[in-house]
Amino acid sequence: MTGRNVFYAQSGGVTSVINASAAGVLDGISAHPETFGQVFAGKNGILGALREELIDVSQLSPRERAGLMHTPAGAFGSCRFKLKDLDEQRAQYARLIEVFKAHDIGYFFYNGGGDSQDTANKVSQLSEKLDYPITCIGVPKTIDNDLPITDCCPGFGSVAKYVATSIREAALDVESMADSSTKVFILEVMGRHAGWIAGASGLAQTSTHPAPQMILFPERVFDRATTMQTIQKIVNRDGFCALVVSEGIRDDTGQFVAESGTQDAFGHRQLGGVASRLAAMVKEDLGYKYHYAIADYLQRAARHIASKTDVEQAYQLGLHAVELAAGGHNAVMPIIRRLSDTPYEWTLDHVPLSEVANVEKPMPEAFISEDGYGITEAARTYFAPLIEGEAFPPFHNGLPDYVRLQYRFAEKKLPPFAVE
Amino acid sequence: MTGRNVFYAQSGGVTSVINASAAGVLDGISAHPETFGQVFAGKNGILGALREELIDVSQLSPRERAGLMHTPAGAFGSCRFKLKDLDEQRAQYARLIEVFKAHDIGYFFYNGGGDSQDTANKVSQLSEKLDYPITCIGVPKTIDNDLPITDCCPGFGSVAKYVATSIREAALDVESMADSSTKVFILEVMGRHAGWIAGASGLAQTSTHPAPQMILFPERVFDRATTMQTIQKIVNRDGFCALVVSEGIRDDTGQFVAESGTQDAFGHRQLGGVASRLAAMVKEDLGYKYHYAIADYLQRAARHIASKTDVEQAYQLGLHAVELAAGGHNAVMPIIRRLSDTPYEWTLDHVPLSEVANVEKPMPEAFISEDGYGITEAARTYFAPLIEGEAFPPFHNGLPDYVRLQYRFAEKKLPPFAVE
Repeated sequence: MTGRNVFYAQSGGVTSVINASAAGVLDGISAHPETFGQVFAGKNGILGALREELIDVSQLSPRERAGLMHTPAGAFGSCRFKLKDLDEQRAQYARLIEVFKAHDIGYFFYNGGGDSQDTANKVSQLSEKLDYPITCIGVPKTIDNDLPITDCCPGFGSVAKYVATSIREAALDVESMADSSTKVFILEVMGRHAGWIAGASGLAQTSTHPAPQMILFPERVFDRATTMQTIQKIVNRDGFCALVVSEGIRDDTGQFVAESGTQDAFGHRQLGGVASRLAAMVKEDLGYKYHYAIADYLQRAARHIASKTDVEQAYQLGLHAVELAAGGHNAVMPIIRRLSDTPYEWTLDHVPLSEVANVEKPMPEAFISEDGYGITEAARTYFAPLIEGEAFPPFHNGLPDYVRLQYRFAEKKLPPFAVE
Repeated sequence: MTGRNVFYAQSGGVTSVINASAAGVLDGISAHPETFGQVFAGKNGILGALREELIDVSQLSPRERAGLMHTPAGAFGSCRFKLKDLDEQRAQYARLIEVFKAHDIGYFFYNGGGDSQDTANKVSQLSEKLDYPITCIGVPKTIDNDLPITDCCPGFGSVAKYVATSIREAALDVESMADSSTKVFILEVMGRHAGWIAGASGLAQTSTHPAPQMILFPERVFDRATTMQTIQKIVNRDGFCALVVSEGIRDDTGQFVAESGTQDAFGHRQLGGVASRLAAMVKEDLGYKYHYAIADYLQRAARHIASKTDVEQAYQLGLHAVELAAGGHNAVMPIIRRLSDTPYEWTLDHVPLSEVANVEKPMPEAFISEDGYGITEAARTYFAPLIEGEAFPPFHNGLPDYVRLQYRFAEKKLPPFAVE
């Protein structure tokens, strides 16, 4: 006898290893044929459930299935869409139950960050508040590394490895040119509220490599005069300055140094362009020739330079999510617990979804050096193991051989539903 | 008996494989102890000669010497400095002869692009015009791929691999998000005058991967209305549009699109790149949410994703430059000749410096598709072998283990000289 069917979906900003979590979920389910029936992946997250766009995972080719382990971004599509509270949006919850009933879905795995775990937590309320029995497990994911309780978040270690590699490479370039050309290089990285990613770039700085000589954190108020004075000191000392800036830095009035004005569905302002502002200041105040790079999606999609540790954790968290469901847990999310820094050892645990939904973990104050422009030993100890190991994808004709799934959908059984 | 000493230097914008050429030069010299004496590397190109800043290459550690093969940027420093004509700047030429005499330099290897080969060509005139006997060999290098006669330029294949990989990865990301978030992604790449780099990104497009669905070439006049209409068509067809734009695109008045930005409150021109201008147009004209990345130095320093073909050619060209000198050639530059596309076969040849100095090779018109937004089969045939093969650097603690040389200088024998 086979069990009830499974719904899996990806939500929020994607990462270079979220598909490795999907691979873990699928492998976990295959290991428990007595517990789980068919697997449907929602196209574009929870929207796939509301629209009854259910990808029949059994029809993936072996190549597609294997490719999940090394393909970045959301292979099933993701979304920026948040379920409102039950009382505000009964129609959407009723629709979810209709779709789940129509396809006998008894397990819900939702792969995402803090906002997405809130959606998972709300879906878990279907059981007690609306009498539809469902097991609901979150699978963590976010490059922002800001989920609480877990030691780290899948996706973060690979971004960390990308930004540290990139600033090391670009710094060698600018140092080569600095005598008669560019003296200041600025790399803009993601991190709207917390400096996790910017901080991790500090790993590139060693006794051999001076860069990044400066990191601008969103945790520190941006002051133009002090920043420019510090850049000048660094150029005087090293001949060049390669710095990393978080997109989220703000001035003393709380205003983002760069704002592009638009907002996403979660109400977050869309940022980007702080590097060009900073570059203009360097030119105006110091007269140095500058260059700047904006990593943007490149950083979170860079599966070609993913951290092996990160890929492994993403996979294991997907696998463990299924083990939790099979073991009778509900409304929980698996997490990483760090057992030891050196040698790095970690294990899996889990927490209630209610404790992670909508909670943002700040970067510890103790990670930022006294002058506000670098990282401490405590930060290095924390970040270092997360970028360890390489997990290169296979290459074909000189390029990473990523899969792009051919979706085959389960037959629709219900009339269309308009998602507001 | 040992021969006269050697001067080697790196010039112009650096690449991720120029140090592999340096390794080739050094290995070549080691193979001819009867011909060559000591090797000095100019710190920061020709400036190192003028300033008598001569790095004693014999004092590099074995680790430093081995690291050249996998370390990006100019390990000896580069420069943006062009020798003027002999008649305009006799003092600089006289100084060069002084320095070369003081250190018994009889061989001059200059590693650079078109401007740098002009410098090499001018130095070669020391023999006939100023009676200082010197053998002068150029070593080609430029990510711009615009040196004439040679089939390709070391540095280009690796940038090509980086941009094609990056747009493939970012496109998977934006496709995941497009239903409820970002629909247009723009990657800005280098190429002020020619679309070689932008064009090579087109290799990412295959029967499986639709992106980049659009490439904006500097060879085509940028027209806002047509471009926006095409983006809209692509979004309507594919759900998203991932496009690559060359930094050098211009409008019908010949003005760079990147320079057509707005001014800030102080009347200063906003220093955004072309990507941010284009993104603003997408928002204004089409209302789509966008993201953009500016690869800048990351693209030319990305040794972690270098093309094995490129690394091998860079090394062989350095080696061959020395063979040419040992064989009695003078005032020449080694080049790549393509013998066959499939299988890819190439060989080494050489041309007079006078034929490559200051000459820019445009990208063939036949490489751009009829609609102006893509590449042709001819382009694919040309580009494809240049990105073949991976040549990952060694990693240490999760990051590429690049070397940063400790310079040990030859003792100065002359008074200082002020370079204008």
